[in-house]
Formats: sequence, C-alpha cells, structure tokens
Amino acid sequence: MDARTGLPVVGMVGAGQLARMTHQAAIALGQSLRVLAESPDDGAALVTADVMIGDYRSLADLRAFAAGCDVVTFDHEHVPNEHIAALAADGISVQPGAAALRYAQDKAAMRVRLGELAVACPRWVDLTAAPDPAAALREFGSQVGWPLVLKAVRGGYDGKGVWVVDSPGQAEELLASGTPLLAEEMVAIARELAVDVARSPYGQAASWPVVETVQLDGICVEVIAPAPGLSVELADQAQQLALRISSELGVTGVLAVELFETSDGRLLVNELAMRPHNSAHWTIEGARTSQFEQHLRAVLDYPLGTTTLTAPVVVMANLLAGPDDVVPKAIDERLHHCMARWPDVKIHLYGKGFRPGRKVGHVTALGADLDTVRARARAAADYLANGDAHG
Amino acid sequence: MDARTGLPVVGMVGAGQLARMTHQAAIALGQSLRVLAESPDDGAALVTADVMIGDYRSLADLRAFAAGCDVVTFDHEHVPNEHIAALAADGISVQPGAAALRYAQDKAAMRVRLGELAVACPRWVDLTAAPDPAAALREFGSQVGWPLVLKAVRGGYDGKGVWVVDSPGQAEELLASGTPLLAEEMVAIARELAVDVARSPYGQAASWPVVETVQLDGICVEVIAPAPGLSVELADQAQQLALRISSELGVTGVLAVELFETSDGRLLVNELAMRPHNSAHWTIEGARTSQFEQHLRAVLDYPLGTTTLTAPVVVMANLLAGPDDVVPKAIDERLHHCMARWPDVKIHLYGKGFRPGRKVGHVTALGADLDTVRARARAAADYLANGDAHG
Repeated sequence: MDARTGLPVVGMVGAGQLARMTHQAAIALGQSLRVLAESPDDGAALVTADVMIGDYRSLADLRAFAAGCDVVTFDHEHVPNEHIAALAADGISVQPGAAALRYAQDKAAMRVRLGELAVACPRWVDLTAAPDPAAALREFGSQVGWPLVLKAVRGGYDGKGVWVVDSPGQAEELLASGTPLLAEEMVAIARELAVDVARSPYGQAASWPVVETVQLDGICVEVIAPAPGLSVELADQAQQLALRISSELGVTGVLAVELFETSDGRLLVNELAMRPHNSAHWTIEGARTSQFEQHLRAVLDYPLGTTTLTAPVVVMANLLAGPDDVVPKAIDERLHHCMARWPDVKIHLYGKGFRPGRKVGHVTALGADLDTVRARARAAADYLANGDAHG
Repeated sequence: MDARTGLPVVGMVGAGQLARMTHQAAIALGQSLRVLAESPDDGAALVTADVMIGDYRSLADLRAFAAGCDVVTFDHEHVPNEHIAALAADGISVQPGAAALRYAQDKAAMRVRLGELAVACPRWVDLTAAPDPAAALREFGSQVGWPLVLKAVRGGYDGKGVWVVDSPGQAEELLASGTPLLAEEMVAIARELAVDVARSPYGQAASWPVVETVQLDGICVEVIAPAPGLSVELADQAQQLALRISSELGVTGVLAVELFETSDGRLLVNELAMRPHNSAHWTIEGARTSQFEQHLRAVLDYPLGTTTLTAPVVVMANLLAGPDDVVPKAIDERLHHCMARWPDVKIHLYGKGFRPGRKVGHVTALGADLDTVRARARAAADYLANGDAHG
C-alpha cells in the first residue's frame, strides 16, 4: 500500500506500451504503476514515477522489484516461470500465477491442456517430444497435408516465431536450429477473431464483445469491434469459451483468446495471452471499462467494470512505422496534419522511435457506420505511420 | 522537444489534479508532462516522471523549470503575472500569456474588460479603487439592494474568497482586513451554467456543450452535460459568448466561463478560469476529446479535437471528503464496494488524503436517462466520499 494515498501499489514487469497504457488507467484509480524496465527509455519508463531498471530474468531483481508491491503482474510473458513461482513462495501476490502463465509461455503445454479440456484447436504435433523430429513432421504432414505451420514453443510474438513450410525439406534448417518447435495444420480460415476477458482471483469474470482482428504478415494491423456479421450464437460460443478457459486455467487479469473462424463456421483456438493485449486496445475509448483498468481491477481482486461498447462500431488500427527512417521532427508534423484531417480519431503514441516496421502506436475511430469508421481509422493510421496522404 | 521521441515537452506549473489528469492525456499524445510541484506528494508529482520541486512565485525557479519546455502552461492561476511576462520575454512560449491570464487573476480587471466588451455581468463596484470603501459599499447597497456578495479580487477558489453580507456592519471586518475586495449584486438566479472552450494561438477554437453546475456552499458538487432543458437559442448564445471572450481576451488553452442563468432567462458571466476546469471533468469519458487533451492540443498549437458528447447524458459528481477522518485502508474498502455496486461509474482519485471537505476525486456516469444517470453518479460519489450506503 502507498502510505501517502492508502491505495495499492501494482508492480508491472516490463515497461512497454502495455505498461504505459496501464499507468494511464492506474492514475484514475488513485494509483501510480511501478514498472520494472530494461531501459530508462522504455515507453512506460518515460511516463511513470516509480521505475526500477532491472532484468526480468534475474530473481534477485524481481524480488527487489516486488518488495512493497501489493501485487505483481506482467507486460509480457518472458519472465521465467520458476521465478514467478519463487515470488509467490515469498508471499508475493503474483497475478496471473505461475501455473496459469505456463500456458501462455509454452505453446505445447497450452495445446495439451486445451486438448484435455476438449477445446477445439488446429491439429498439431509436438516436435520437441519426438525422437526424430523430421520423421514426425513428415508423418504429420502426410496426415493433415502441406503446407504446415511451424511455431517456436516459446517466445514468439507479432509474427516472430511462426513459419509456413511447404515441405519437409523446407523445414530442415529450422529443425536443425535447435529451437523447440511444434507443427500445426494450416487451417482454411474465413477470418481471425479474438475474445478478451478478465478474471479476478475471487473468480469474477467479464468478457468484452468478440472482435475481428486483421493480420498482415502475421502482425495485427486492425481490430474491428464488434466482429462484423458474427452470429449471436457464434459470439456467445466464443465468449463462453474464453470464460471457460480463463476459469479452467486459473487465469487472473486479462486473457486474450485468439481464434480462427473456419470457412465452415467453427471456432478454433489459435493462441492465448495473459496480459492486456493488442486485440483490446479499442476498449480505451470503445468500452465503458478499458482492458487496462480491468486488468488492474482484476489483479487487485477489485470488482470488475462494465464491458459494454460506447459506440456501435469501434475500429483500432496499429501504427506500424513505414520503411523510411523518419526524423523526429516529421512525427510532430504528421501529428498536426492527422489531427486537422481526422479531429475525431483518437491517437495513442507509445514513446518509441519510428524505426521501420516497429509498432509505435495505434489510433481508434468510433461511430455508427462500419465502412466510414474503418476508412477513417485506416487512413489516419497510414498517414501517421507512413506520411501517406491517401484516404 | 524530447529527443527520445521527437515530441514536444509541455511544462505545467502546479502539480494538482489538473496536472495529474493532463498527464494522462499527454501520455496518449506521446508526451510526458513536466510539472513544477510544491511537494513530491502533490497529486501529479506522484504519477509523472519529470518533476521539479520549486516555488511558482520564484522567477528563478520558473526559469529553471521552463528550460527545455516547448510550452509552459498552468494548473492554477497563482503565478505572478510579471513572472509570466518575464518568461515570455525570455522567448518561452507561455500559454495562456500574461495579458490574457491577468483577467483570470484579477476579478476587477476581468469585470472592467468584460464591461468594455459589453458582456453582461452582475452589477459590481471595485472597493479597492474607492477612497472610502465602507461608504462605497453603502452606496452600492442602496443602489442594488442587500444582501451583497463580496469577493476577494485575487486568489479565491472553491467558495474561498467569497462572502455574502447582509449589511454594511457585517462587511466591516472584511473591509478592515485589508484584502482587496469588490462588491457584486446578489442576482436572482435560476441556476448556474458553464461553457468550456479551448483556443489555440493560431486562433482555432472549439466549445463543448453548455453544462449545468450544481454548487453547495460555493463549491461545485455536480456537473450535468448537456445542461437539462436549456433552449437551443440560449445554449448557442452561451457558446458564442465564451468563444468571443476567448478571442477578445487572447486566451489560449482551455477557458471556463461560469455563468448565471437568471430567473428571467438572461446569461450573466460570473467568473473565468484559464486552465482545465472542474466544470469539464466530465469530458474525460463524456466527450470525444477531453478538456485535458484539448488543453494540450491548444497550447501546442495542434489542431483541436472533436468536442461532441459520447452519450446523451453525462453527470460528474465531485468527491468531497466527509467530515470524519478516514484511515487509508477504508478508502480501498470503499472502492471495492463502489465498484461492485456501480460497475459502470468511472472513478477518478487524485492521490490526496481524505481530509474533511477536501476535493479528493470525482466520478462520472453516462447514459440515456437524466434521472438515472444523475442518481448513480450522486450515490457513487456519496459512498466514496462519506462511506454512506444510501442511494
């Protein structure tokens, strides 16, 4: 507890944009987020008062960071699971806990567990468990057909750690690299969806509406809330599924469930994340309670907030910095033009330099007409990220 | 400019709740607010990365603070006007400037200027300019009738610096205190209104809808947006008036115009404030662009954002700490109960201890039905501030 305010201290390991936006929500709740940053230039370290520079892989650093925190939570999944368990053994409230977080850290463990729960996923095989991975891959390919998707069991994000391979030969180099891998069937999908839910240690849980996520080269570029044209039945099924997973896995805080909607109308779980997630950035303006506020409420075991939409249509577009190096002055000029052209679009910048391909922010547009809202979000994002004047 | 991000550095003199909430808006725009705080425990100092502890009455401190800022602006009106002029002479962009801010600092100068602009105000007399203030007060009272309102020319806020007096005798002590005073007629009012506008140095200006402000003992307790039952004509008149004042006075940033709506349907200007203002806290969730974001956009000469409402009815209720001293632990318990009972109500705590009568936060409720929304905001605020279970 912060003795000056009587309110809790939440420590977040990692100081990227998720921590940065969580801090904004923490301020309203009378708190000030404590962050464990790798560098003083991290997005959240630039804007928070309580920053420790340290290594999330070091138990000593984590212990020093956790001292005085009412709860410790995460901006990313990379903290060693055994360190999380050690903090809990020290008596620290760590949310989500090691047992739940394991399934977000280890894609093979996640798939085994979801299989036990009879949750539909793409067919897959754990190549790390196979005595001859190349042979296992060939056999799996002959069962489900090529091409296949290879995924690093640990540490992938934003398209990193995912490869599509056409043949056993193409997979050779990856198999030889020693990276622990799993193989997954390439599903014929209609589109990708996501459901974000939050759950508290007490067991209260709440879901935001199901959204459509649009990917480009494996990176999410756009999120549409609610998912256009999704039947009430499928939306309900997706929300029930995410709530069941959060409960069965003992997740606390925000859980993002990334889904494939198949061409024949089934839902398959693609990935899980146990932290605020890009698929719910739209909730900052688009839902009565944002994912960042809800994550804080959940990990603190506060009652959860209302998750209803604030507008009929909400579209978030990521700012992926264009291929050209941008001088800092140009960013401010782009901001001027963007604000003049789209005065209703909400801008979120993460305090990062505009290096090519980097996710440096997002914009959100709200309104009544899907095509209009989507076009405005897309055009504003393109302009800010690339300086393109189209749209 | 912050070399790490290429984005501007805004310095705000004062580190109370207005700076605290401005920082939340700054984060989204890729910035981090720099604050000049009196104490490290000030509400904004608790949550910002770039804090200087100093004295806003010291030109040396102000100069040290302004170094490296792209623009300097204010959380309160108490910075000596000559210091603001001196900073501008140093080449610092100070928004609003000394010439405009003078009218928010000196209630007599404001009334003289509004008189020149033929803006309707309550009748008044400047007692500081009278050779015999007691005689001037008697004469004014015989013209406009008793009781009268006495106001300190400088430094009043939240009901402080305002006195209602029934007779010359009752005013004696105040007149003898040496406080520079003006006297104002006691107007028969139907209610109080406020119009908040923002204006940039370029001259772009935008108004939020006119709101009703509900006062108790001279302190604002509730703001209703839009003002219920206000005719389109009167709303338009109020907005035009505020825009004209902002332009004529050369205001930059947010200008709050507090108005009396008289029983016979006229609008009289009560007070002006040139900074984010309590009457527009509802804009955080209730308008597409909040006053805090808009203030930043305006003082940076960015294009302004859309000011439309996000819901048909928005009600803000201040949290005025109840008469009992509250142990810190109790605040967190109240938060739990408040969140459980009103999961849709948005809570804003300012990082202040709950000392009796102190404004420690506010809540905002949004919806379609005025009575319902107002009751929810009121009940949540009462519960958080006092621990009362009614409502």
